[in-house]
Amino acid sequence: MSIVAVGTIGYDTVETAHGKVVGALGGSASYFALAARFFAPVSIVAAVGRDFREEDRRLFSDRGIDIRGMVQRDGETFRWHGRYHEDLNVRDTISLELNVFADFMPELLPDQRRADYVFLANISPELQAHVLAQVASPKIVAADTMNHWIENDRAALMRLLPRINILTLNDEEARMLSGEHNLLKAGRAILKMGPGTVLVKRGEYGVLQFSKDALFAVPAYPLEVVVDPTGAGDTFAGAFMGYLARKGGTSEAILRAGVVYGCVLGSFVVEQFSVGGVAGLAWDTIESRYRAFLELTDSHHPRWTTQ
Amino acid sequence: MSIVAVGTIGYDTVETAHGKVVGALGGSASYFALAARFFAPVSIVAAVGRDFREEDRRLFSDRGIDIRGMVQRDGETFRWHGRYHEDLNVRDTISLELNVFADFMPELLPDQRRADYVFLANISPELQAHVLAQVASPKIVAADTMNHWIENDRAALMRLLPRINILTLNDEEARMLSGEHNLLKAGRAILKMGPGTVLVKRGEYGVLQFSKDALFAVPAYPLEVVVDPTGAGDTFAGAFMGYLARKGGTSEAILRAGVVYGCVLGSFVVEQFSVGGVAGLAWDTIESRYRAFLELTDSHHPRWTTQ
Repeated sequence: MSIVAVGTIGYDTVETAHGKVVGALGGSASYFALAARFFAPVSIVAAVGRDFREEDRRLFSDRGIDIRGMVQRDGETFRWHGRYHEDLNVRDTISLELNVFADFMPELLPDQRRADYVFLANISPELQAHVLAQVASPKIVAADTMNHWIENDRAALMRLLPRINILTLNDEEARMLSGEHNLLKAGRAILKMGPGTVLVKRGEYGVLQFSKDALFAVPAYPLEVVVDPTGAGDTFAGAFMGYLARKGGTSEAILRAGVVYGCVLGSFVVEQFSVGGVAGLAWDTIESRYRAFLELTDSHHPRWTTQ
Repeated sequence: MSIVAVGTIGYDTVETAHGKVVGALGGSASYFALAARFFAPVSIVAAVGRDFREEDRRLFSDRGIDIRGMVQRDGETFRWHGRYHEDLNVRDTISLELNVFADFMPELLPDQRRADYVFLANISPELQAHVLAQVASPKIVAADTMNHWIENDRAALMRLLPRINILTLNDEEARMLSGEHNLLKAGRAILKMGPGTVLVKRGEYGVLQFSKDALFAVPAYPLEVVVDPTGAGDTFAGAFMGYLARKGGTSEAILRAGVVYGCVLGSFVVEQFSVGGVAGLAWDTIESRYRAFLELTDSHHPRWTTQ
């Protein structure tokens, strides 16, 4: 089943302890689609400027990503410049230029309106709702959000939450949205706001998945080198949603395997700047790390219980 | 197989957001033994003062803990006063009185010298070596350490490491000991210093277990309320070593189950002040949370894969 994803496509300048890239392909829709495409057909809804590079257009289309909904407008592409601290959990935004994204009011293509799986990346809750209203009968809707919308557009976000199935956000955002410092209380409080599943992303500490009947906790895949954390959350969401769409369900088993694939793809993307860690991936490499992840986290793996 | 544990037995004054206890039973050997006794016979090596309470002596002996090696000396029992920040990962030591522990030079009883399992709690590396030298032919030796010894007694610690099988320490201590900020590099560097297994305790983020051929990562058991984190690490070590002693081996399967039992017992102890969370535990309660822990962390549990 196919996925429609709305979000940003941008050119990022990123500085970390490992170096700097200038004007590299980024944006939530880019990371999401480049991960989701391993699992299911994915179609992007986004706006780019006249400066959008042909090579980046090909980067998507060569990987089977449907970019008919990526409209090109007069003006420049969305740009973000960020600088990470040595503690990669902390970053400063040096500049942010919305450019063509500033007055983007997405209109879905006729076939996108029939999508079964919808991902509303981290854009304003108003815009998320505007996109969602165009999809006739989605089976699964997932949304991401951030502190900015929780603080400044809370009412719209609260109206959106009962209409989505899955919310992804990081630990600080979960605390902010729920008003609960304790993460277990926070996750449970957010479930009551509407979504059937809440995924709390904890960066290097992994993911907590809350649903009505179960709680699932995974550590992040440990890495010797993290070059650039940008896009880890959207890559996680792409693999997770992709897996759900491929399986066509949301049983606890599917959700959990989806979370693990999300962590696996997320671990690849942070090993390189920009989309490098996920654009060049081969399926075998993913499956190999998926198996390593299961072994890493398994308290009673067959291999170990034979002693 | 039986375990000998050397460490402190003390009276703690602890302040957290949930309240305050004054002069409550604490110390590394207390927490360790109260967890280990669920799995294997455990014998303490420690010193207490004339003020040591008969009720605390009974608390140990009623639970089958061998306290013949807990010598009573003229003077007062070891005392520690700590205050936790709202972020429970941070605490201030208000006061520390070594008292009878100041010149304690442990001498093991004849049967303790024949122990198969030895736990050297967080005391000076010199004292740890002094105890270890008295044990004739230990099968498994585990030791805990801390920033104070890494900074001030590094040479003695480095001499000890090749003589032990298992080292437990927290993430900051692992970074300090190895000189590596990245935890994966840190754990692997410490393996090269001697111990075959390194357990990095990450508080609310769980545990990483390093061994030559495998890496195991578990999150902490999520709790709605953490009253007092004191003793979590020693309780973890007690259940872990207890499980190893009960199973009589150190296969990867046994180590991993031991880590999970360690996390489970650690989760109980932080739910109450002092040793309350582990002194009154029933085995059924432990097993129930052990099963919940496996389900919490299991990406491919039978229950989930039947859909």
